[in-house]
Amino acid sequence: MSGPPLIAGIELGGTKVNCILACGPDAVQDEVRIPTTSPDETLAAVEAVLDGWNGFAAIGIASFGPVSIDRASADYGHVLATPKPGWTGADIARRFARRFDLPTGFHTDVTAAALAEAKWGAGAGLADLAYVTVGTGIGVGMVAGGRPVDGLTHAELGHLRPVRASGDEWVGVCPFHGACIEGLASGPAIRARTGTAAEALAPEDPAWDGVAHTLGQLLHALALTGVPRRIVMGGGVMTGMPHLFPRVRAAMTRSLGGYVSLAEVADADTYVVPAGLGGRAGPLGAVVLGTQALAAFTDR
Amino acid sequence: MSGPPLIAGIELGGTKVNCILACGPDAVQDEVRIPTTSPDETLAAVEAVLDGWNGFAAIGIASFGPVSIDRASADYGHVLATPKPGWTGADIARRFARRFDLPTGFHTDVTAAALAEAKWGAGAGLADLAYVTVGTGIGVGMVAGGRPVDGLTHAELGHLRPVRASGDEWVGVCPFHGACIEGLASGPAIRARTGTAAEALAPEDPAWDGVAHTLGQLLHALALTGVPRRIVMGGGVMTGMPHLFPRVRAAMTRSLGGYVSLAEVADADTYVVPAGLGGRAGPLGAVVLGTQALAAFTDR
Repeated sequence: MSGPPLIAGIELGGTKVNCILACGPDAVQDEVRIPTTSPDETLAAVEAVLDGWNGFAAIGIASFGPVSIDRASADYGHVLATPKPGWTGADIARRFARRFDLPTGFHTDVTAAALAEAKWGAGAGLADLAYVTVGTGIGVGMVAGGRPVDGLTHAELGHLRPVRASGDEWVGVCPFHGACIEGLASGPAIRARTGTAAEALAPEDPAWDGVAHTLGQLLHALALTGVPRRIVMGGGVMTGMPHLFPRVRAAMTRSLGGYVSLAEVADADTYVVPAGLGGRAGPLGAVVLGTQALAAFTDR
Repeated sequence: MSGPPLIAGIELGGTKVNCILACGPDAVQDEVRIPTTSPDETLAAVEAVLDGWNGFAAIGIASFGPVSIDRASADYGHVLATPKPGWTGADIARRFARRFDLPTGFHTDVTAAALAEAKWGAGAGLADLAYVTVGTGIGVGMVAGGRPVDGLTHAELGHLRPVRASGDEWVGVCPFHGACIEGLASGPAIRARTGTAAEALAPEDPAWDGVAHTLGQLLHALALTGVPRRIVMGGGVMTGMPHLFPRVRAAMTRSLGGYVSLAEVADADTYVVPAGLGGRAGPLGAVVLGTQALAAFTDR
């Protein structure tokens, strides 16, 4: 067989599941959307979709978190403690691997989106990338050498505690940390602080200064990991908000203070860019996860 | 050939070079120490040491930073801009690879120490680990799947800007960031704040609270990367300071606020531990780098 393999990709989200049969963004054979209800009902419906498809060589699953991605753990591929009714402890990855007897890749939806952006999106051709989604929550996925950066678990860098802008003592909305990155700059944080949804907040509203400062601190941290050759930002708060990118870039550059002198980081306009795949990053990321699981299986 | 290969390891430090001919900590055939002077003089002296050794299959170099570890870059294996006279732009890795025509691994001294601690030290047997050295500077090395976590460059997470402890507005000593982690908790920071060297500062001195808070913020960040199964801490400020570990662990746990609920992280006493290899982590890390370079060459 020549060309990339055909993969069944599943993006398991909190309200819907995107199923895609594809080799890549230019070779999509089918797409099906299913509402997320109970685990059994939802996963059975996904299995029925895959039963109707032919010729896929592997499965990739991009799941809402938290999930166990630790292959050394008994709960690998399961959803961990989540407020979502019925989903705590749900087995995802092993269920599909058993049911279809195929190599099955599994990771968070954010990590999957990072993989897709690095392969086909705003970081196409870059083996090392960070992806940040700013929406209901703030998620970070990192890719190094074309693979997810992980170990014990997946990244949760949206919960870093940033240094505060001078004089800003707003307490934030994160139930765990108050004023962590997510607690200060997510969609719900912006609404809580201003009474207005992010998409309706005027560009000149001073609350954006705090958001830009906070996200700049996150980018400062990501640059200091040494991993990304580019940082791709998406999600509801970033999308369609052209004024925000220059402010976030400036906040990062100001915070780094010239410390990382590499040209890639110094040119903030090309270092921090909008996502290229939009809502397709998740399901396409699931395709990358399936492709990598297949390659790992073949290499064994 | 059976058993691990014999490697020439070179830890290139700011004041001295540790050369080691070894397969591992229990199979050291020779160790030689050379003062660090000019690049040409120093590296020629190291070459002369290696000329006198027989049977090594690869070379590993653990260098002071900043260095380029980007194989896609023309300056791979070179020292980048450094205040150290004569060393900016010095070619290290390619010089040794050419001279000895052997696979040559190259990374920072901190990353090398992380590799050694993960293989033979306080994280022996763990494929995913973070190593933090707190001394003249604060350095972080991360290992995932037994390999350095990197991409564009090596980690510089000692320069994160931590959220400050309530009421603490000390400006810190980092020339780039003032109150970054290194600017607040390194040896020079402690001396600048208290007038006393860290090793002479009484455990009940209130300055330790700020140091513990700051290092707790760094550990919070490292845990949120998702990578480490354990965090190993060494360096002059941590070593021989038994009161500091419990305080740093408590600061991390307080800051995470229960967010990472995995048992590995929740048990802070086993999650954050003292380094196991002491001053030998650097040269032994160079041996790991050489071993990995040899394996990559053999796999080609």
